[in-house]
Amino acid sequence: MSRWEPNARGRLAQAALELYAERGYDQVTVAEIAQRAGLTERTFFRHYADKREVLSYGADQLRELLVRGVDEAPAEMAPIDMVGAALESATDALPGDSAMAARRQAVVNASPELLERELIKMSTFALAVADALRRRGVADPAASLAAEAGLAVFKVAFQSWADQASQQPLRQVIRDCLAELKAVTAAG
Amino acid sequence: MSRWEPNARGRLAQAALELYAERGYDQVTVAEIAQRAGLTERTFFRHYADKREVLSYGADQLRELLVRGVDEAPAEMAPIDMVGAALESATDALPGDSAMAARRQAVVNASPELLERELIKMSTFALAVADALRRRGVADPAASLAAEAGLAVFKVAFQSWADQASQQPLRQVIRDCLAELKAVTAAG
Repeated sequence: MSRWEPNARGRLAQAALELYAERGYDQVTVAEIAQRAGLTERTFFRHYADKREVLSYGADQLRELLVRGVDEAPAEMAPIDMVGAALESATDALPGDSAMAARRQAVVNASPELLERELIKMSTFALAVADALRRRGVADPAASLAAEAGLAVFKVAFQSWADQASQQPLRQVIRDCLAELKAVTAAG
Repeated sequence: MSRWEPNARGRLAQAALELYAERGYDQVTVAEIAQRAGLTERTFFRHYADKREVLSYGADQLRELLVRGVDEAPAEMAPIDMVGAALESATDALPGDSAMAARRQAVVNASPELLERELIKMSTFALAVADALRRRGVADPAASLAAEAGLAVFKVAFQSWADQASQQPLRQVIRDCLAELKAVTAAG
């Protein structure tokens, strides 16, 4: 086995998700994940601190894309559409395959520990997006509301996409959900 | 000390919050909370399973009021306004005093463990409100979006009220934040 393993990080994430889905998160060891990926435990620990961290695969990049999406949105765009554009560009950090997303969601939803970490992560994303909006000159509470509502759109869209309620790409599901949020709030 | 203690539950919650704020959540024992409230440990455990549960004071009632608010909203009301009415009526489960709310928020925000439980709770509230909207005939994803956006309004409003950014009663801050959310999403 060569020292440099192509896409070891992604292969480990995929192997871990398969095993968590098959046997339950608590029953799976790092050794088993490495074996399934055809890699060593040592390689595993070069990429992840522990077996929980595997599920954060893509999270740092997701956060970065969200913030950059707001930073780089055209100045004439309304704040909620800056967030919408950021959400769409952030889909580049996620697997294009909704079956893999569905597997991940099922694993996370089945474990209180994982669900907690997931909710914390979403909450820090909302804070980061609100900060980015403030840097674009959006006042509070509009900045916080646009960020929180945007993350709500992301959450609903991602779950709907993972459930395969829609056969559309995630980017399109996000766009549709944002349009639906606008319709819902306009109706009041 | 008589066996029946008037408002023991509320007094314990108040004493616990004061101690958590003064010394940090991790440093406080149940014995100290009981003593501060002028009650026994035995009485504490009649009301709360552990020192973390004290912070959920009012949560069951909050959830009940949210769901009932949607259940009982006039049929001609738009879904987002059903949620708005529910959020306003749920304020009856919360202390009227924003200083106590501020103390509670500071304690929760300082502890990852408490923040996790808080986010889980908010997340289950959103699911319960979405279910209530579906029972009122609202389709998905509108039901989930209105519920999640509504809880986002609650979160932003509560924080702003606790920060005393506004001297208004919480009910009014919620109403203003919902109006602001509508303006934010209409601008897009």
